[in-house]
Amino acid sequence: MNEQKRIRDFYPSIGNMKTGNKNSITDVPGVKVGHVTLDDGEIKTGVTAIVPHNRNLFKEKVIGACHVINGFGKSIGLVQIEELGNIETPIILTNTLSIGAAHEGLVKYMLSIDENIQSLNPIVCECNDGYLNDIRGLHVKDFHISEAIKNASSEFEEGNVGAGTGMMCYGLKGGIGTSSRIVNLDNREYIVGVLVLSNFGIIDDFMINGNFIGKELKYIVNTEKQRDDKGSIILIVATDIPLSSRQLKRVIKRVNPGIARTGGFIGHGSGEIAIGFSTGNIIKHQENKEILDIKIINEPNINKVFRATSEATEEAILNSLICSNTTTGKNGHKVYSLANFPINSPYNFSSSKYK
Amino acid sequence: MNEQKRIRDFYPSIGNMKTGNKNSITDVPGVKVGHVTLDDGEIKTGVTAIVPHNRNLFKEKVIGACHVINGFGKSIGLVQIEELGNIETPIILTNTLSIGAAHEGLVKYMLSIDENIQSLNPIVCECNDGYLNDIRGLHVKDFHISEAIKNASSEFEEGNVGAGTGMMCYGLKGGIGTSSRIVNLDNREYIVGVLVLSNFGIIDDFMINGNFIGKELKYIVNTEKQRDDKGSIILIVATDIPLSSRQLKRVIKRVNPGIARTGGFIGHGSGEIAIGFSTGNIIKHQENKEILDIKIINEPNINKVFRATSEATEEAILNSLICSNTTTGKNGHKVYSLANFPINSPYNFSSSKYK
Amino acid sequence: MNEQKRIRDFYPSIGNMKTGNKNSITDVPGVKVGHVTLDDGEIKTGVTAIVPHNRNLFKEKVIGACHVINGFGKSIGLVQIEELGNIETPIILTNTLSIGAAHEGLVKYMLSIDENIQSLNPIVCECNDGYLNDIRGLHVKDFHISEAIKNASSEFEEGNVGAGTGMMCYGLKGGIGTSSRIVNLDNREYIVGVLVLSNFGIIDDFMINGNFIGKELKYIVNTEKQRDDKGSIILIVATDIPLSSRQLKRVIKRVNPGIARTGGFIGHGSGEIAIGFSTGNIIKHQENKEILDIKIINEPNINKVFRATSEATEEAILNSLICSNTTTGKNGHKVYSLANFPINSPYNFSSSKYK
Amino acid sequence: MNEQKRIRDFYPSIGNMKTGNKNSITDVPGVKVGHVTLDDGEIKTGVTAIVPHNRNLFKEKVIGACHVINGFGKSIGLVQIEELGNIETPIILTNTLSIGAAHEGLVKYMLSIDENIQSLNPIVCECNDGYLNDIRGLHVKDFHISEAIKNASSEFEEGNVGAGTGMMCYGLKGGIGTSSRIVNLDNREYIVGVLVLSNFGIIDDFMINGNFIGKELKYIVNTEKQRDDKGSIILIVATDIPLSSRQLKRVIKRVNPGIARTGGFIGHGSGEIAIGFSTGNIIKHQENKEILDIKIINEPNINKVFRATSEATEEAILNSLICSNTTTGKNGHKVYSLANFPINSPYNFSSSKYK
Repeated sequence: MNEQKRIRDFYPSIGNMKTGNKNSITDVPGVKVGHVTLDDGEIKTGVTAIVPHNRNLFKEKVIGACHVINGFGKSIGLVQIEELGNIETPIILTNTLSIGAAHEGLVKYMLSIDENIQSLNPIVCECNDGYLNDIRGLHVKDFHISEAIKNASSEFEEGNVGAGTGMMCYGLKGGIGTSSRIVNLDNREYIVGVLVLSNFGIIDDFMINGNFIGKELKYIVNTEKQRDDKGSIILIVATDIPLSSRQLKRVIKRVNPGIARTGGFIGHGSGEIAIGFSTGNIIKHQENKEILDIKIINEPNINKVFRATSEATEEAILNSLICSNTTTGKNGHKVYSLANFPINSPYNFSSSKYK
Repeated sequence: MNEQKRIRDFYPSIGNMKTGNKNSITDVPGVKVGHVTLDDGEIKTGVTAIVPHNRNLFKEKVIGACHVINGFGKSIGLVQIEELGNIETPIILTNTLSIGAAHEGLVKYMLSIDENIQSLNPIVCECNDGYLNDIRGLHVKDFHISEAIKNASSEFEEGNVGAGTGMMCYGLKGGIGTSSRIVNLDNREYIVGVLVLSNFGIIDDFMINGNFIGKELKYIVNTEKQRDDKGSIILIVATDIPLSSRQLKRVIKRVNPGIARTGGFIGHGSGEIAIGFSTGNIIKHQENKEILDIKIINEPNINKVFRATSEATEEAILNSLICSNTTTGKNGHKVYSLANFPINSPYNFSSSKYK
Repeated sequence: MNEQKRIRDFYPSIGNMKTGNKNSITDVPGVKVGHVTLDDGEIKTGVTAIVPHNRNLFKEKVIGACHVINGFGKSIGLVQIEELGNIETPIILTNTLSIGAAHEGLVKYMLSIDENIQSLNPIVCECNDGYLNDIRGLHVKDFHISEAIKNASSEFEEGNVGAGTGMMCYGLKGGIGTSSRIVNLDNREYIVGVLVLSNFGIIDDFMINGNFIGKELKYIVNTEKQRDDKGSIILIVATDIPLSSRQLKRVIKRVNPGIARTGGFIGHGSGEIAIGFSTGNIIKHQENKEILDIKIINEPNINKVFRATSEATEEAILNSLICSNTTTGKNGHKVYSLANFPINSPYNFSSSKYK
Repeated sequence: MNEQKRIRDFYPSIGNMKTGNKNSITDVPGVKVGHVTLDDGEIKTGVTAIVPHNRNLFKEKVIGACHVINGFGKSIGLVQIEELGNIETPIILTNTLSIGAAHEGLVKYMLSIDENIQSLNPIVCECNDGYLNDIRGLHVKDFHISEAIKNASSEFEEGNVGAGTGMMCYGLKGGIGTSSRIVNLDNREYIVGVLVLSNFGIIDDFMINGNFIGKELKYIVNTEKQRDDKGSIILIVATDIPLSSRQLKRVIKRVNPGIARTGGFIGHGSGEIAIGFSTGNIIKHQENKEILDIKIINEPNINKVFRATSEATEEAILNSLICSNTTTGKNGHKVYSLANFPINSPYNFSSSKYK
């Protein structure tokens, strides 16, 4: 991650709140992210794993919540998150048609670490990378899942890596991006981190921090595919703030303003799904006590968590763009990186020379 | 309540669990119920108030949840219960067209006990008593609300009283009914109590503890109105078990089997709404700490709470029927009490002599 | 409305789509809006009625949908809209504590126009005007409702009128605003219109079309109340496009990007609720046929309806601000109009001279 | 199916409505069901496919809806059904840990029949057969899916076949069961058909048509596993009645009373999920018109569809039990068939001789 220029190098003030140390979802203590990238000719896809902590998640579940912004999507595991408010596997991101392989791989991984598991709620989310990737080739295999989990680290790359390898966003190259914010509660610092898999939007709508740069860029970038609505965005929100699942659900709904401020308006075909987890309470699979003590936030204080979520979402999306490289994939489809363009001097931007 | 015969006097085994002391929602410590009955010729309506505790509810909110079984109903306050998971006013039951008056009365009552209130989420639920009651006359007035709240007591009548005055259920006289069950957790006794306002169903479907008595009774009772689907049932579930709002929502969904075992199948026009509260955690309106300690149930133990809710619901509905008196109201409409019929000897029941 | 300067006079390009004739919710054929304004010293409140068509709405219902963005709100009627997908009364907007009076007034109005009504689902939405208005005085009376309905016209004022009289938005004077967009389908022009009651946000966050003007204005405007989160926004979306209630619900969710582009991030205390109706199909209360023919949109075409909704929402919010007058209300609280400030020359904006 | 005794042979009057010709979900014109049964020692599992019609479902989608009764389940595809209200693949039932394989198989099947598919919403539902089946062995393979689809026929077996091979229900052998009802609308006969995969409940609670037979049987059947709550039930509701997705969702909620009347109370661990489809409108993947004509039911008539759904659900569950054979599986676990017991003479039932 250290080599990549991030949006903050161009726009130092996305929102008002302080970022975490790495400005990453992995600023949340214990959270790790790992990729498997499949990048070979017409194969432009992969797997990204978000691991809430490094112990047995099935035995020590984290509080979970999900929010469907636009359900034109195929992500799995949401029904049980909604009912029980917890998450018991790493969260896997991949392409739309590879959910089955990812499910199979995640089951095998979990069975391998816990011999007592008879039932399991695997969380797998997806976007469709079919413009750049030979998606019908089903190139993600079950073994890629444990590989991605094993690759998980607090340092990880953004852009066209892992599940983000073949994604596009606002007609530009999209993929994995992350950001974080610090929230103070009772004189302690907590973190809200967001990771996105970005694959939505059209170039005309794209904006950075109030700057309608997409209106300029649309004359430059390949617009052939830009009006496509087979997009999607997956947003993973992690925090160590103690929250009930109801509170966490409220929090993750605040990815919405973050998306909108980059220009999104939730297109018909854009499956937009947010999943959140809080490591602030651990729910044990086996527990003798019948009444438990947990911690939650005193609700009026949740406002700063909302703001943190919105800001980190906006910045994570922009990072997913700026960190991606120009990519040529299936059928010679070429998608440009945002990094190609002089994005930090919007008003002197002369579009003509790029046409 | 002491004089009324209840269903347990005829059918001693509705379900398997032990009832609370009074077999009433008021077995939950602190919970009280009060009625205002308007019974005068064509006026057959009223108000019932369920009071979770006797302190200032706005300052000391209880955990709340709601569940819409069939949303052909007009109850108010559910949006905020769903969002915030708490309840800050007594719960008022009345007739469909009197929700406005009840809202107004509940606001006035709350403003009178707390001079700082600027915003408030009044909970008012309703069924339609328009068959027996001159509902278009709007006979419930705002002052009836504080009256009902002041009447609240741990002893209260069931049947055609309060909001139940003009209701009918399975073609018979319905209204207010209650029941409770004891749940043991960590060697302590807790209570699940249910109160219903019953106003749904057709006589053919009515059953008591597996006995299809409605198939007999349909030859006897006035069937003129029995196929009407402008019914409804409101179910209030109270408990002192510490539950999160998510857990409580799961609990109150288990009123469904209780309704079904009396013969209901959730008719199109039957607005069926459950509201629950738990006094096991108090949420203060003003609270200095930013992170709070609360208690919840260890989820696998929730199964006995589910069963308790289902059993108490079934019995509360039956109590609402057996405790009601035959009533003649608007346009001479007459609705019979279940108590008129030999319900405890089903198989010797000779319908012919009642025809 | 003809005298008021609107946001388009300063920013001619909010979004890309063409507005309707009046750039108003009343561009939707048949839709009318009426106000009752209560503006007298510490009384700064009122009622706004949105009337879908001028026939008996109970007998000829319109398709309806609702969407709760943040349920810290008290609006009523949503349960039945969600279940049945229709609307059978005008939509009334008023202050938080006056919902009861508005319900009562709406019931009386409907009973007066239809002698057969025994049951009714009144729609009443609210924001809290307690900063400028003596909200505890309960100044809205039931008779104001029929008055507002009778005042309904295709021409109506925006800003601090009707329910908007005492509202504030982004620390500035808010209230009623509207806008519309044209959508072409099968070579016919349809309208999407939005009306808002705006009462949310803090000045720091306020932006116009990408211009972070709030960061300038925060040094100028009265900031005393600006961090208050007792806000809210109600959004009414009307259209003549034939939509199923599911489709309509999808449409009205697209108010979200519109709100976000003015700077909102859905604060904890900001009850944000959208209600939509389509006049494209009429559902008769009495109907002999058991299977009905209706029209819906071919779903992929819904994308332009989404965009229209988002754009009209953004512009309606800005209109609610620019059309409002500086107002002094309860306890001498003074809230400034956006019209006081040189909003169309952002980058030459010298904040110092206003401090 | 012709050889199997069904519940109607013992209890001829489950509900009041007329059954379809085969008393099966395949009474709905065009609907077919196919099984792959894996029954070999400790392998007791399989796949069941429900096929809405025999054309390309992706190109000619059916109206769909889903309803989560208790979300302790892992079924996939629900997010998109909820959003778009349609179904574009056959519905696959299998065991909990084999969802991934089933997804993979369903994707491969659909890709094989349509070369243009780039995105797809596979519907796969599950129950946990881990008591009788070596579920950790992951014995279902992707190719079993196309096999089950190819086996689909209007005649199919019930009981311990297909996905039902290893399921248990009320402590007895459960699995696949079906039933149907006829509904008349505008003088035409329509069908509501239900198919269940039953795997829930404890013996004590089991009842048949009001007869608490489980209270007798609990002394007889192997009770070792009966208090287990790792159950579930999947319910597929099919109809040719023209319904909107909102109406269809209302319809499928009426499986609840049907379940309750067999003794279920929605246990904590019992994932209960209903999915419905209507063939009454076909939604084309490619469609030139921007406004479409569809048919829906005139809503008050939906009541008979509700009743049909409830009745068919109750009977389908009972069929799943009575049609299953006593089975011995993993670790020598033995589960009895209901057919072993004299269920049609409840009151002469002498439990002692079976003890």
